[in-house]
Amino acid sequence: MIQIYDTTLRDGTQRKDISLSVSDKMNIARRLDDLGIAFIEGGWPGSNPKDVEFFQRAAKTTWKNAKIAAFGSTCAANKQPDEDANIRALLEAETPYCTVVGKTSVLHVTDVLRTSLDNNLRIIEQSIAYLTSQGRSVIYDAEHFFDGFKLDPAYSIETLKAAQRGGAETLVLCETNGGSMPWEVSEIVRQVKEKLDAPLGIHAHNDSECAVANSISALREGCIQVQGTINGYGERCGNANLCSIIPNLELKMGLKTLPDGQLKNLFDLSHYVAEVANLSPDEHLAYVGRAAFAHKGGIHVAAMRRTTRSYQHVDPELVGNRMEVIVSELSGKGNLVSKAEEYGITLENESQAVEVLQTVKQLEAKGFSFEAAEASVVMLFKRLEKNYKAPFELIDFAAEVEHRRGRGIFSEATVKVMVDDQVMHTAAEGNGPVNALDLALRKALVTHYPAVDSFHLSDYKVRILDGKNGTSATTRVLIETKNEIKTWNTVGAGTNIIEASWQALVDSIEYGLAVVHPASQGV
Amino acid sequence: MIQIYDTTLRDGTQRKDISLSVSDKMNIARRLDDLGIAFIEGGWPGSNPKDVEFFQRAAKTTWKNAKIAAFGSTCAANKQPDEDANIRALLEAETPYCTVVGKTSVLHVTDVLRTSLDNNLRIIEQSIAYLTSQGRSVIYDAEHFFDGFKLDPAYSIETLKAAQRGGAETLVLCETNGGSMPWEVSEIVRQVKEKLDAPLGIHAHNDSECAVANSISALREGCIQVQGTINGYGERCGNANLCSIIPNLELKMGLKTLPDGQLKNLFDLSHYVAEVANLSPDEHLAYVGRAAFAHKGGIHVAAMRRTTRSYQHVDPELVGNRMEVIVSELSGKGNLVSKAEEYGITLENESQAVEVLQTVKQLEAKGFSFEAAEASVVMLFKRLEKNYKAPFELIDFAAEVEHRRGRGIFSEATVKVMVDDQVMHTAAEGNGPVNALDLALRKALVTHYPAVDSFHLSDYKVRILDGKNGTSATTRVLIETKNEIKTWNTVGAGTNIIEASWQALVDSIEYGLAVVHPASQGV
Repeated sequence: MIQIYDTTLRDGTQRKDISLSVSDKMNIARRLDDLGIAFIEGGWPGSNPKDVEFFQRAAKTTWKNAKIAAFGSTCAANKQPDEDANIRALLEAETPYCTVVGKTSVLHVTDVLRTSLDNNLRIIEQSIAYLTSQGRSVIYDAEHFFDGFKLDPAYSIETLKAAQRGGAETLVLCETNGGSMPWEVSEIVRQVKEKLDAPLGIHAHNDSECAVANSISALREGCIQVQGTINGYGERCGNANLCSIIPNLELKMGLKTLPDGQLKNLFDLSHYVAEVANLSPDEHLAYVGRAAFAHKGGIHVAAMRRTTRSYQHVDPELVGNRMEVIVSELSGKGNLVSKAEEYGITLENESQAVEVLQTVKQLEAKGFSFEAAEASVVMLFKRLEKNYKAPFELIDFAAEVEHRRGRGIFSEATVKVMVDDQVMHTAAEGNGPVNALDLALRKALVTHYPAVDSFHLSDYKVRILDGKNGTSATTRVLIETKNEIKTWNTVGAGTNIIEASWQALVDSIEYGLAVVHPASQGV
Repeated sequence: MIQIYDTTLRDGTQRKDISLSVSDKMNIARRLDDLGIAFIEGGWPGSNPKDVEFFQRAAKTTWKNAKIAAFGSTCAANKQPDEDANIRALLEAETPYCTVVGKTSVLHVTDVLRTSLDNNLRIIEQSIAYLTSQGRSVIYDAEHFFDGFKLDPAYSIETLKAAQRGGAETLVLCETNGGSMPWEVSEIVRQVKEKLDAPLGIHAHNDSECAVANSISALREGCIQVQGTINGYGERCGNANLCSIIPNLELKMGLKTLPDGQLKNLFDLSHYVAEVANLSPDEHLAYVGRAAFAHKGGIHVAAMRRTTRSYQHVDPELVGNRMEVIVSELSGKGNLVSKAEEYGITLENESQAVEVLQTVKQLEAKGFSFEAAEASVVMLFKRLEKNYKAPFELIDFAAEVEHRRGRGIFSEATVKVMVDDQVMHTAAEGNGPVNALDLALRKALVTHYPAVDSFHLSDYKVRILDGKNGTSATTRVLIETKNEIKTWNTVGAGTNIIEASWQALVDSIEYGLAVVHPASQGV
């Protein structure tokens, strides 16, 4: 069994646009534990109070699978471990494991740490020995190991031996700057194994876009632990991506990493962490991206059903992903029937699917795209249901943007809709014309449908389809809406950006009322 | 010299959210040629009319470095090459190179192509032989090569030999499904080289997050060509990323790929292609991401200044990137001074460059991006010239979109500007609010500046920068304008899409009058 060591909560948060609260960190840690990750590095208690609080809460939690680790550096060059604040913080975190980082490279010892090579060996050995004497298991992170080895192999091995003498359980070779090639990593791990009998780990960064290859190459040479982050989050170009490493190990290399039956939860975990980190999930990630198994076209889909493995390197369900049958003008009736089933829509007869397919094709010819707007597809079906009643009916809308000398720019919109035989006529100002329309429409609906208040426009994308015609080109608008239950996507298109936005807005709100909150109908 | 073969314009556009116009493709091709890319695959002429038009335009263009290649498959299983529409389309593309894809894997021959193993060898050999007899150089793409080799090594070698007999110049081993590990790629390339004496290439996909490692591993074993895309764009998880492969080869493996002095333009190319594809540049890309050399924290920065190489695997300037913490005012100023010279703008003193640099920074913080909007940068300089007089001055504008029962949707705009001390107040209807504003503004100017009539808005792109805020997010608008002399690009940004569009429109028309048609000033 390969030990998976997750550092999303420490190294992952070094990414410039991630900031996690203590609750966020606890929530992610619980999910990592559920998946069966062996080690969870919770933070650097010596560096900030948020991490101290995390460890206080983690100490009161029962973990099913994971061992919690606190991260810190060796003691200061001029100190003993027992008088070092950073080492004290590690002990106060009260974790079963401490991960200690130390210097490997002569360059870093002399130019950055500015101490002697011998004293560096002393602080490595003594820091680890002190922590083990206090009952902690210690993982040693050999910073800049590969660069250090290239500069001075003998000294870099000495630093590992010092950690071993101190009692470290595992020696982790860090590819800190991310500059090594996979064959260099293999070769250096091989040489270390010849010179040292100790359990080794690998910690890689993605600066040469080789972090995954470097990690699995090291494991192939006999490392037993791999450190990385969910979705490869991390400073600069990121850390080694566990969402690629785990399936590569399990599915390609026959190495176990997780408890039985857990691999299929990887997709959900990846998206959960992106959500909590407030980052858009990268659709194109290996294994766990939404587009990782996306196939277009009806003929292609038919061929896929015959010989799946001819177009997929693994079965997507193994990691909880699925083959994305993209509904587009290229799809056949079969795609739509299965899409309707997926959403629990009962087709009265197959001709309804044909009708929707025809509409999809007509609208796509006008510039709509349903690939990323499933809620709009569902609404096409819904509106065909015999007893379906739209929650509101449009009479008029208007949006204007004015720039007036002395006042500057402003946007205003009015909406007139029929709701339950009542005319609602509202107005609102906004940051722009679409924002103003959105606010006016909500005003018109919220009395009858209080659920509208919970819908939140979480993404708004505009694409100009036929650049040739400049500002009279066709515009496609995609809207993502969210509430506490669900996220859904809708589309609109036309030469007029406001009209296109309006269509997507209407689908978004109608879907929310008809599918997400059906109970709110007619309140 | 390793041959870099770019397929951004063909395989790259398979990514679900990329759609390039013919002009976009020509613009990208010119930039690839400027960089010194050896081969540019322009598209699949047999599959769509857009690609046919691209090749017509490419045939009339003089290329400095690149050989243009058209992509297509072997002839149909039941046909001769000279009676096959797809092969005919390849010839009609009139490119010096044709790239022909054929089946390697017994699984695909029998289950997907549904023909005999022998007939597959026939169509590979004959298709290539026919194209070479017509004076084309042929590159052979062996689809699913690695999967095919794993199933039946002998047959997969036979397919390569058939291509060799047909006269193919290079045999490209394709890792089509992206499922192989780097050591498998190395081992299989090694075995192919033992059995075959031919120039080999590698074409990899990123489904296991190993496309870069697989590509460079194959090149290390002696392949002489690598196929990939800018930024790794491509179907599913993308193609092998040339923006990582090129610097890995040049800086880590000592292999030449580009003409001298070109590597430092890689950063700009990466961002240019993202702009044209209307995708947010991925900040975390290796080498070319904006955060690739970003360092947090003051101490870190101080250490960096002492010993740069201790924290960076390469010097970011080698690829045209920069360390993010250091606000490089000097190099920034230098860039702007040469940009001004390029456009024949005489700076009265260097402080003007500093002033423009400051404005650029302020505007970029608000969401502007000047990378693909040089005309807007030029206008920043122009407006600082002592005797520069703007061709018009804004007083008011208003744009509205209305949907009224019985009439449907319509857009109207009014513009009030001062031209030569005369107030021009005009109105126009349009397909949408921006189109209406554009038309009203032209009406207001055309009497004084007849040249305005020749300007044609040829592209209009909208990007939402901060999706998280829904319709109140920041919007960036890029406008491309064209006349018989020149094409130029301008930018606007703000939370209001109409205001952002207006800014870009004003820059577009002002640049046209001040730089493209300076004689028309004050007519």
